[in-house]
Amino acid sequence: MTNRRCLTVILAAGEGTRMRSKLPKALHRIAARSMLSHTVASATEAGADALAVVVGPGHEAVAEEARKARADVSVYVQTERRGTAHAVLAARERIAEGYDDLVVLFCDTPLVRASTIAGLRQSVGEGVAVAVLGFQAKDPTNYGRLLTEDGKLTAIREHKDASDAERRVSLCNAGLMALDGSRALELLQAIGSSNAQNEFYLTDVVEIAAAKGLVSVVREAPEAEVQGVNTRAQLAQAEAEIQRRLRQAAMDGGATLVAPETVFLSFDTRLGEDVVVEPHVVFGPGVTVEDGAVIHAFSHLEGAHVGAVASVGPYARLRPGAQLGRKSRAGNFVEVKNAVVGEGAKINHLTYIGDATIGAAANIGAGTITCNYDGFSKNRTTIGAGAFIGSNSALVAPVTIGEGAYVGSGSVITRDVAPDALAVARGRQVEKTGWAEAFRTAKAKPRGEKA
Amino acid sequence: MTNRRCLTVILAAGEGTRMRSKLPKALHRIAARSMLSHTVASATEAGADALAVVVGPGHEAVAEEARKARADVSVYVQTERRGTAHAVLAARERIAEGYDDLVVLFCDTPLVRASTIAGLRQSVGEGVAVAVLGFQAKDPTNYGRLLTEDGKLTAIREHKDASDAERRVSLCNAGLMALDGSRALELLQAIGSSNAQNEFYLTDVVEIAAAKGLVSVVREAPEAEVQGVNTRAQLAQAEAEIQRRLRQAAMDGGATLVAPETVFLSFDTRLGEDVVVEPHVVFGPGVTVEDGAVIHAFSHLEGAHVGAVASVGPYARLRPGAQLGRKSRAGNFVEVKNAVVGEGAKINHLTYIGDATIGAAANIGAGTITCNYDGFSKNRTTIGAGAFIGSNSALVAPVTIGEGAYVGSGSVITRDVAPDALAVARGRQVEKTGWAEAFRTAKAKPRGEKA
Amino acid sequence: MTNRRCLTVILAAGEGTRMRSKLPKALHRIAARSMLSHTVASATEAGADALAVVVGPGHEAVAEEARKARADVSVYVQTERRGTAHAVLAARERIAEGYDDLVVLFCDTPLVRASTIAGLRQSVGEGVAVAVLGFQAKDPTNYGRLLTEDGKLTAIREHKDASDAERRVSLCNAGLMALDGSRALELLQAIGSSNAQNEFYLTDVVEIAAAKGLVSVVREAPEAEVQGVNTRAQLAQAEAEIQRRLRQAAMDGGATLVAPETVFLSFDTRLGEDVVVEPHVVFGPGVTVEDGAVIHAFSHLEGAHVGAVASVGPYARLRPGAQLGRKSRAGNFVEVKNAVVGEGAKINHLTYIGDATIGAAANIGAGTITCNYDGFSKNRTTIGAGAFIGSNSALVAPVTIGEGAYVGSGSVITRDVAPDALAVARGRQVEKTGWAEAFRTAKAKPRGEKA
Repeated sequence: MTNRRCLTVILAAGEGTRMRSKLPKALHRIAARSMLSHTVASATEAGADALAVVVGPGHEAVAEEARKARADVSVYVQTERRGTAHAVLAARERIAEGYDDLVVLFCDTPLVRASTIAGLRQSVGEGVAVAVLGFQAKDPTNYGRLLTEDGKLTAIREHKDASDAERRVSLCNAGLMALDGSRALELLQAIGSSNAQNEFYLTDVVEIAAAKGLVSVVREAPEAEVQGVNTRAQLAQAEAEIQRRLRQAAMDGGATLVAPETVFLSFDTRLGEDVVVEPHVVFGPGVTVEDGAVIHAFSHLEGAHVGAVASVGPYARLRPGAQLGRKSRAGNFVEVKNAVVGEGAKINHLTYIGDATIGAAANIGAGTITCNYDGFSKNRTTIGAGAFIGSNSALVAPVTIGEGAYVGSGSVITRDVAPDALAVARGRQVEKTGWAEAFRTAKAKPRGEKA
Repeated sequence: MTNRRCLTVILAAGEGTRMRSKLPKALHRIAARSMLSHTVASATEAGADALAVVVGPGHEAVAEEARKARADVSVYVQTERRGTAHAVLAARERIAEGYDDLVVLFCDTPLVRASTIAGLRQSVGEGVAVAVLGFQAKDPTNYGRLLTEDGKLTAIREHKDASDAERRVSLCNAGLMALDGSRALELLQAIGSSNAQNEFYLTDVVEIAAAKGLVSVVREAPEAEVQGVNTRAQLAQAEAEIQRRLRQAAMDGGATLVAPETVFLSFDTRLGEDVVVEPHVVFGPGVTVEDGAVIHAFSHLEGAHVGAVASVGPYARLRPGAQLGRKSRAGNFVEVKNAVVGEGAKINHLTYIGDATIGAAANIGAGTITCNYDGFSKNRTTIGAGAFIGSNSALVAPVTIGEGAYVGSGSVITRDVAPDALAVARGRQVEKTGWAEAFRTAKAKPRGEKA
Repeated sequence: MTNRRCLTVILAAGEGTRMRSKLPKALHRIAARSMLSHTVASATEAGADALAVVVGPGHEAVAEEARKARADVSVYVQTERRGTAHAVLAARERIAEGYDDLVVLFCDTPLVRASTIAGLRQSVGEGVAVAVLGFQAKDPTNYGRLLTEDGKLTAIREHKDASDAERRVSLCNAGLMALDGSRALELLQAIGSSNAQNEFYLTDVVEIAAAKGLVSVVREAPEAEVQGVNTRAQLAQAEAEIQRRLRQAAMDGGATLVAPETVFLSFDTRLGEDVVVEPHVVFGPGVTVEDGAVIHAFSHLEGAHVGAVASVGPYARLRPGAQLGRKSRAGNFVEVKNAVVGEGAKINHLTYIGDATIGAAANIGAGTITCNYDGFSKNRTTIGAGAFIGSNSALVAPVTIGEGAYVGSGSVITRDVAPDALAVARGRQVEKTGWAEAFRTAKAKPRGEKA
């Protein structure tokens, strides 16, 4: 989007005390992805050529998540907590390499759009040293106010330090910032810690720039986009906002969400045109649904591919590796894991299909279980095209049911079945006349009479 | 409600491009019924003696849906898209038959109440040639404004043609209209197409009437009632509004909806008094629930009848033809289809009952499957009153379990069981001492040692 | 909180006609507890030394619920409906015992917090005879207005009797009241019935006190806290408000609720730190979840204990007596009832475990059923530590599977299995070559050819 080279520093060192969590704040998730990963993704989409993530001491899991999100990330540890500018300077070595733009993001402000970050970046250079992201706060109490004059940002004033007039300003600081890379290190290093907390505040950079005759500006974003996450309640609010976006995008793309407020999508859910999603559906990460498929109520999908015009649920659980063919069906109380289901095959009720291949147009009866696990290893079940598995059967893997074969209801199949053959493996039916009546009579007797 | 004869013309020719759908817009559903069917039902309830539906070329499915909704409907095809008046005149032949009232409805405004349509109708005649439905728009931008003088409607002004003063008018055009049948054809035919789009606009009828010295009036409806559906997001909004109505009506009727916002009803769901519906329940079409029944969380019902004081769910799926008797129970992970369940019978867990009759007070154990399908035809299972089906049994239909009979757990029943008899059909238990320990030892060996 | 002795009178005599219910209004539930029980609990928490509940004639079930909520409650029957003061005086005998404070609560205002009641109590005594709970009404229409002068309450004016000026008052009467116990009986007995309805109104106590030179005051509460429940829709609103509180408290305590608006808690649900609750989960009464456990989507828990770092669902139903050990798992379409599940044990799919003990690290295969019911009594299943139950097995209780034992898939186990042994109980597999092909050919024949 530009040929200026950009370094993005993501601050992810927060303990997140108010979360009351053993998990570092950066690793809490929205839309099935950590806040850190969201931030890395947005930074990358906004054109970050290099990425530095600053983590707290002992937060190896955060470092690992950063590397998982983007392999070439540099991780720096902020050994002491001495403020936001101090945190950014943990990446000093990287900043010193000299980039055209320096962008500072916070992993607990995970909803900022890539386009907003890009806009911030584009605001620096050509005489502007600093661009700060602001928002019009519905309730500005406790936010830092952005004080402007002639369209330029003159200072960021903390709420507690603000005059009455300044407190009436509703333009607040979202925290994110872009700096002209050619001046960034100089400005950051000029920030001092002569304040009550003895910390180095990134917000001071504006006044420092002004003192050097350098210009700062503000870019505005909607408040919902810059909401921070410091508590579980705010995490839920961020989740709600990202779900709102994902649902809107799915509907704009031609999917019907009957009750969007009850459908939960992941950051990477892909729904085709004329996909219908009934109420109460959860999409975990890694799901693709092709055109015209119907996801019925109470379904739960994760790492699954649903072919065109297929039917899922109600109450279907598709787990990672489930690949449903065109026009196939996975119905109620059906779990499918690591299995390829052929075109038009039907798995309608109360079934577990794991580690299996099911041929086209096969019919899997109610209550079928693929016994894929022997306590030590997982084994595969292969069911040929057009095969019919009678209800309540157990298929003990590894096992192959040939094409067009027929398994009698209630069978426990332990050996392969030849194509077009019938296999039955069940007990012989025996009847005892009058037994039930006698049983009832015996049971109905008062305990005293039993003897 | 009147002895004036009424023709209603429903415009259903829209392609619905903004829906991004292969399905014509008229066939998209809210509350489990197409928008077209909703409109037909409201028109009929408002007293339409005759009904004409105007469909787009090639939209045979729309015509079929119209006929399904009301058998005596006349369907007309609008072969070219030349505006709303042009669409109405596709039904010219019918209009020419001479009705007292002509009502024009739009299938993409499906929430208009019958009482509102009736009110519109009652506004024409006795000196009033045209009655237009209006609403106070929260944000009038892009709506046509209804300009009035002395309580009469003088013009409908498109947003783009409106003066600043006119744009401040918040009374907007909902599209729906009633015309005095004795003047309708004359007025409609007077509408010209000398405008930028070269189309015939129904809204022009107001100025044409005025030019002839005929009076037009406005009736107002709440904005939520006249919301149009042009996108998937608007379809979801219409669904939300109709659900709000259906939930309110259910509660007014004496049902408890613990969390109404999570319960989805169909247009025809009927809930008795003291029915309790827990959170997260979906009612498809055709469901009746008698007094005092409880529908537990995560249940999904469609085409089912639930008797008084019966208990459904959690996680019960009742499919078409499920008829649950008084005080019967269908519990968790239970599917019932095309089956009559007797009074007090219990199907508590993990069971599929399809094409069956279950006698009063029968007990169906966990994991029972009626094997009703042999790959070609469906067969019935009959279970007598008071019978006990042991857990994890498969009943291979056609089969009859006699009254009071007892089926041992884990049996595969392929032949009829006599009343009061015991039937068992399972393998004999064999034990191999120490096998599991040896198996574990073998499996635990490093691969290299196996040989 | 004080050494003043307090009597609380709860009015629970309402028929609740507008509920359209056979159930007395006091017994309708929010957050899985009757409104009466909520009120009793709040009264007790606010320090009620004695409690009197006034019920309608024939409402023995209400009396019973009151005694269940607090054993030492006195129940009085209001034999005729003659107004709120008349109802309070049904407990005259108790009031006459002489308490320092008399608090009057209504069971259909169930959301009032204990702290609010305590505050009301603390307002009486030392010259104040009456303290009335008020709220600022968004729409005061139809509420009684609280008229004040110099911070004192001078009268409660019914809407219909109020002047225009009085109608502009938005401070409204919530009904609840505290009286100085030393004057209470005297004031209550002075209330007359010379009004249109010939009833005794508690609200008259303010003017009576004033006439005696006694002071009344107002305490304010938020409107949401004092909302009354007269219809099913208001019951749903009260449910929504109490859920809002419970969810907020759970999040404040360090639980993640991914989508709090889809999670339903009971009054006594306890979630530990770092518990994650996915969307669409219902907690019935009596559930405790230890730190770090994950409750996946579509789960339903009641009377259950979930150990630390355990995993529940999706689609797990835990019923009363389910005790899941640390790091254990109950997965999809799994029901657990009255069963202790050992540390690290896995019950992953389509299983019913009832009346059982499962040892540590045991593995229960998909489709396993404990056959605990023989039609008359419930019997226990015991599974030893480290045992492996093959898929689709039925365990016919009473039965014990020894430690480390192995049950072959599809077995029906009717006798105990020794530790470390293998048990298999299933039919032998038989194959008929070409049968399926022949079957298809036969079935595919037109019916006419069959003979």
